[in-house]
Amino acid sequence: MNQYNETILSNNETIDDLEINGFRLIQKKDGFRFGIDAVLLAHFANVKPNSLCVDLCSGSGIIPILMCAHGIKAHFCSIEILEEYANLISRNIKLNDIENDFDVINDNLVNYSKYFKPCSVDTVTVNPPYMKTTSGYNNENEDMFIARHEAKCTIDDISKCASYLLKDKGHMYMIHRPERLIEISQSLETNNLKIKNLRFVHSFADSKASMVLIDVVKSGKGGLEVSNPLIIYKDKSVYSDEVLRIYNKI
Amino acid sequence: MNQYNETILSNNETIDDLEINGFRLIQKKDGFRFGIDAVLLAHFANVKPNSLCVDLCSGSGIIPILMCAHGIKAHFCSIEILEEYANLISRNIKLNDIENDFDVINDNLVNYSKYFKPCSVDTVTVNPPYMKTTSGYNNENEDMFIARHEAKCTIDDISKCASYLLKDKGHMYMIHRPERLIEISQSLETNNLKIKNLRFVHSFADSKASMVLIDVVKSGKGGLEVSNPLIIYKDKSVYSDEVLRIYNKI
Repeated sequence: MNQYNETILSNNETIDDLEINGFRLIQKKDGFRFGIDAVLLAHFANVKPNSLCVDLCSGSGIIPILMCAHGIKAHFCSIEILEEYANLISRNIKLNDIENDFDVINDNLVNYSKYFKPCSVDTVTVNPPYMKTTSGYNNENEDMFIARHEAKCTIDDISKCASYLLKDKGHMYMIHRPERLIEISQSLETNNLKIKNLRFVHSFADSKASMVLIDVVKSGKGGLEVSNPLIIYKDKSVYSDEVLRIYNKI
Repeated sequence: MNQYNETILSNNETIDDLEINGFRLIQKKDGFRFGIDAVLLAHFANVKPNSLCVDLCSGSGIIPILMCAHGIKAHFCSIEILEEYANLISRNIKLNDIENDFDVINDNLVNYSKYFKPCSVDTVTVNPPYMKTTSGYNNENEDMFIARHEAKCTIDDISKCASYLLKDKGHMYMIHRPERLIEISQSLETNNLKIKNLRFVHSFADSKASMVLIDVVKSGKGGLEVSNPLIIYKDKSVYSDEVLRIYNKI
């Protein structure tokens, strides 16, 4: 295994154990590394067996790789704009021996029609950049800037892409910041996508929401449902039982 | 006091003790009677001393009367379309000896410009009918039907009215059903009103949201915040500490 790791690993990368059925993930030491948002989104998404699921802004491929780790037997495709990260996804697929059901497209997601027929995808997942290009600090390296800011991918780009890809009644699962929710909702509505379910994520039961999980349906009829809140910590540095379950720890 | 009650009380009405500083409320036995939504909204609204607060779809006047009961010294005005309920508000004002700072307008709120100059109101509160006229059962009496359904007052009517009445940066506080949130957001946006804060209300910590408290700002800049969830019961039939505090019980 060590020999394999040496072949597959570039300088300045780590291999981390996902602690789920032996799955592992190569990540950049100083690049975008996955956090709890990816774990929550992978758990929130409902991907059916044998269906086609496309992950946008895929990064290291963590969302579909987590779903594979949890035993979801679907066909996955990652779209990633940065060549270095698309290459990382390919190596992560190889590392976990899931090449058969996993494709990688290295392109800007606005070029969706080059790769897919309209209405051909069952599920879209996306953990997009949270920040507008006008916000935040710009002293990051370029990869980090693209991963965090809407430099190459706006909410409208995602809505248009999902609206093209998804079959009628197909779902998109997204995680984002609550402060962007109104914009997101407007962009989805103008692209024939309806929010069906929201689940707000709070660090503690008495703190404001820091993230929101969004379940969207193409050609949906409305009738929004807001789930019970997802609380991360039950006490300082102590995960809630639900988060421990999501992390496979209980 | 008994003599006063006899004079002020019509047939088929009750006087209920609000259990806050001696305030009481006349309600119809078989008409619309206030519930926890009114209590939560009155507590959620932030009305400043000496400001002008207009309550739309006022019913028995419960929202501003609760605020008066809690000692908020502002100028209140209720707008109520049904003559019988507008009369009830007038008697509730008299019963609680708050006539000096409380006006009642018996009219459809779409006629706002007959009574107010534009941009003249600091705060609007509204606990509107939750249901579309096409939904629910129609075997209620007419008053109940109007109180529960948008027969005489749609979300757009409320948005237009609040947009006209409010000063720039003035707030509207509303409570509604989560399933209407997207529509509400769209209607507010087209009327220069921005949602600043949402607080979802859940019966239990593990149940979906049944109501949402909405804080709206005229000419606001966006940047939505979602507060910690408001949980009604900590156990079956046992109110949470927060609700007990809102009810003035602890």
